[in-house]
Amino acid sequence: MDRVEALKQKAFEVKGFDGFLVTSEVNLYYFTGCPGLTSMLIPKTGKGIIYAYNVNYEQAKYMTKGFELEMLERGQNLMAAVAKQAKACKIKKLAFDTLNFESYRQLAKELRGQARLKPKGDLVGELRRVKDPKELQLMRKAAELTNTGMKIAYETIKPGMKEYQVAAEIEYAMRKRGSWGVAFDTIIASGARSAFPHGGGGTQLGGGCTNREIRNGELVVVDMGAVYEHYRSDITRTIVAGKPQTKQTELYEIVRASHDEALKAIRPGAKAKDVDSTARKVIADAGYGEYFVHGLGHGVGLEVHEGPTLSSLSKDNLTIGNVVTDEPGIYLLGFGGVRIEDTVLVHKGNAECLTSGPYNLEANC
Amino acid sequence: MDRVEALKQKAFEVKGFDGFLVTSEVNLYYFTGCPGLTSMLIPKTGKGIIYAYNVNYEQAKYMTKGFELEMLERGQNLMAAVAKQAKACKIKKLAFDTLNFESYRQLAKELRGQARLKPKGDLVGELRRVKDPKELQLMRKAAELTNTGMKIAYETIKPGMKEYQVAAEIEYAMRKRGSWGVAFDTIIASGARSAFPHGGGGTQLGGGCTNREIRNGELVVVDMGAVYEHYRSDITRTIVAGKPQTKQTELYEIVRASHDEALKAIRPGAKAKDVDSTARKVIADAGYGEYFVHGLGHGVGLEVHEGPTLSSLSKDNLTIGNVVTDEPGIYLLGFGGVRIEDTVLVHKGNAECLTSGPYNLEANC
Repeated sequence: MDRVEALKQKAFEVKGFDGFLVTSEVNLYYFTGCPGLTSMLIPKTGKGIIYAYNVNYEQAKYMTKGFELEMLERGQNLMAAVAKQAKACKIKKLAFDTLNFESYRQLAKELRGQARLKPKGDLVGELRRVKDPKELQLMRKAAELTNTGMKIAYETIKPGMKEYQVAAEIEYAMRKRGSWGVAFDTIIASGARSAFPHGGGGTQLGGGCTNREIRNGELVVVDMGAVYEHYRSDITRTIVAGKPQTKQTELYEIVRASHDEALKAIRPGAKAKDVDSTARKVIADAGYGEYFVHGLGHGVGLEVHEGPTLSSLSKDNLTIGNVVTDEPGIYLLGFGGVRIEDTVLVHKGNAECLTSGPYNLEANC
Repeated sequence: MDRVEALKQKAFEVKGFDGFLVTSEVNLYYFTGCPGLTSMLIPKTGKGIIYAYNVNYEQAKYMTKGFELEMLERGQNLMAAVAKQAKACKIKKLAFDTLNFESYRQLAKELRGQARLKPKGDLVGELRRVKDPKELQLMRKAAELTNTGMKIAYETIKPGMKEYQVAAEIEYAMRKRGSWGVAFDTIIASGARSAFPHGGGGTQLGGGCTNREIRNGELVVVDMGAVYEHYRSDITRTIVAGKPQTKQTELYEIVRASHDEALKAIRPGAKAKDVDSTARKVIADAGYGEYFVHGLGHGVGLEVHEGPTLSSLSKDNLTIGNVVTDEPGIYLLGFGGVRIEDTVLVHKGNAECLTSGPYNLEANC
């Protein structure tokens, strides 16, 4: 409820809206503590209403104490219900977090010009990126499980193992200790595949490891995370199955230095783009600037990618309670890639790595 | 490439568009075989262009042979690039699969009225729901892995086990045999929790099992699936940890009969809503109609929820090559729930269950 009040303050008092429509399931969970909801309308005056389809209605009734809940029958038009309530609450300026084009058009039609609609997902994002003590407790637990997973990666990677077998052992170790699943599809990218930052997979589609057999002396990028009570964690280590070659060690040390310099730059008040450029400078100075093909990092929380963004284009400033990744990398086509990543909490005076797997380049084999 | 031609036929020849913009990562994979793409513009005349941001560019170059590929720099405006190319190809009627409101607005602005925009994701959905032999081979493999997972569920469920421990064993067994991950967050809903169809979780947010200890004689709904080369599978069994009570067996037999009747009704040419009503009638006749709080099923493929939809509101007809779930359920608040689900292929004359776990109500314990 405090979170709803904070949104009201931002959206109504500061920005001058008189209604806010939340439609993202993750945002709905953030405000209510209940998964599986469809929508919530928060009016400036009058009571907010949560909408849940009948498949999740009983679950919602059980998990959303203190909120007004309305059941939608299968096939019932959500936007018609929202528009009716918006009119009843005399909403004239309705902000929303996210709508696809078709839902937007439907809502606009149902409102018949009685309210102006404006996308303001950033207002919820600004709240979500500052983690409270309860959230940090869950993120610490997720990070702890993630660290266990990475320990298993070092133990499992050896010549002859297949990528998916490494993933199996990591995920099993985290699950057995209480992980709610994986924060995202585990990436195990070995050999030349390690030069692809997403290991042949995609953000929505998943994938990221194959049945490729890891060979002696190859680079293996391991990027994965655990989940605890819906809060996620994210770590990457690059591990050689065998004795590292000079060039592998050279790349590793550059990326490590980049990661460490960025970590020192992560503090309250820092500009996110400055942290990115701190990391980028180390890699560029070593002659590999063009091979660091992504931003330095992203926020982590209920989603594995959220605000703030650490990149050269970011306008974000870091504040106490942000949790972000620090993940520089160098990717050489045909040779392989090196990335080191931790999930980092922005504290009062410094940064704290929540993830803390070993920083060895060599597997334990 | 055949799939792009099929879309062109549908969108350009039948529907009269002269351009199609694909933005969903899953649809992009369907057309190109490459994950991690950002967009693809298919003009009626002129060459199609795929857009990939630099983080995935090398991967895209490697995995999208035969397509024209353009790299977007971090922060580069995708919609400006798309609009420029749309103008160059003289596109006047541009269909798209999906855009959020902000991207839509941006694209419309960049097009400056030179092309009309229309959401036509259903055209891609109609292609995707008819699986070709290569896709069916992958779906059979995913189903096979899923069946192994369910066998493990029967072996693992016993009084004293925690929900997440059961999930750990299921997922490990599937992963070790080559599963690419989980088709969706595994649901292990025991005791009173089994009355919530999503086991306390949500479609986007995940979750669905907790650290609750399974007790003797309790219902446990196990809903899960494996993935193989991005193709998914979906199965549910309801399992009692111990000796089932009369009422549990009664509910189970009703749901089983409903599942079996629906299976007989699944054939090419059948109306999806008739299959739903066949299943619903069995449960309603037994007096539990109001406790079957969801549609009968959904298509499965690259996504775990896709077309066609089996519900009372569906306008879909089944055709050869559809793969759908058959998953009736009864959910009694405070008592528990029973659901039985298989992933089913629509064949020439009949339906074939791709998933085939045991139909026992009792765990092996």
